[in-house]
Amino acid sequence: MENPMRKILFLVSAALSTLLAVSANAQVKSDKVIEYRQSVMTVVGWNFGPMGAMMKGEKPYDKDVFARHAAIVAYMAPLAIEGFAPGSEKATEVGVETAAKPEIWTKMDDFKTKMEKFNTESGKLAAIAKTGTFDEIKKQFGTTGGTCKNCHDDYRVKK
Amino acid sequence: MENPMRKILFLVSAALSTLLAVSANAQVKSDKVIEYRQSVMTVVGWNFGPMGAMMKGEKPYDKDVFARHAAIVAYMAPLAIEGFAPGSEKATEVGVETAAKPEIWTKMDDFKTKMEKFNTESGKLAAIAKTGTFDEIKKQFGTTGGTCKNCHDDYRVKK
Repeated sequence: MENPMRKILFLVSAALSTLLAVSANAQVKSDKVIEYRQSVMTVVGWNFGPMGAMMKGEKPYDKDVFARHAAIVAYMAPLAIEGFAPGSEKATEVGVETAAKPEIWTKMDDFKTKMEKFNTESGKLAAIAKTGTFDEIKKQFGTTGGTCKNCHDDYRVKK
Repeated sequence: MENPMRKILFLVSAALSTLLAVSANAQVKSDKVIEYRQSVMTVVGWNFGPMGAMMKGEKPYDKDVFARHAAIVAYMAPLAIEGFAPGSEKATEVGVETAAKPEIWTKMDDFKTKMEKFNTESGKLAAIAKTGTFDEIKKQFGTTGGTCKNCHDDYRVKK
């Protein structure tokens, strides 16, 4: 017996399953993106910290060690932007948190400009760390840190 | 009035405070190290995944994209070892977990040898990804993946 209602129910259920599968996939992806961007920032911070300590005199200044940290930060900087892919505004699984403000995605051009500044200045720091005087390095370290702060002020939730 | 007991109590309490402060500091550091090594591995995985998908034909092979991922993995590989610093065996704060087995620290020489193999092979992959044929790249991708597995089998808690 032909049953149009059963057919409709089947189609609706198939459509719903597809929707749910797509949405589950998007959820996993969003959380993976968040995890990735936080990881890039953690590696940046891990290397930024000792440079700061050296600049403040809390740690003895070692030119080679400093230059290595600066090179790593400059390498990581341009990797960060991938971590702010569309759709990664919110965490969807329990236990995943993001400090990224939603304004990142509504003002993406400005966000990208600010990230580019970080790329440029950290690149300059990596170069100057190898050849510059202590004062030049310290100045450029301050400028680079300023690009972090500039972006964090606007786009990171305060802790 | 001189009170030797009060003096002793004061000294004991001061010593205890120092001990607690040192231990609290060590705790934070251990968790930071764990967070760092997991971040390095996350960035590695983020880049390894799409290479694997391309090799399995789940994603269209794009030589430049693949080579970029391979270069990033090769850059990250030697950064990982810092994340297994002595004292970072265990997480000390709630919410921090580690899949690193304690054998890493009791068999550090073997662990380092295995990590070095990952460095070497991922370095070769980055080179071959730019100039090699698809088959050469696929072979070296397998070899590199093998160095991950080889180390994970022995030193990572199975999920």
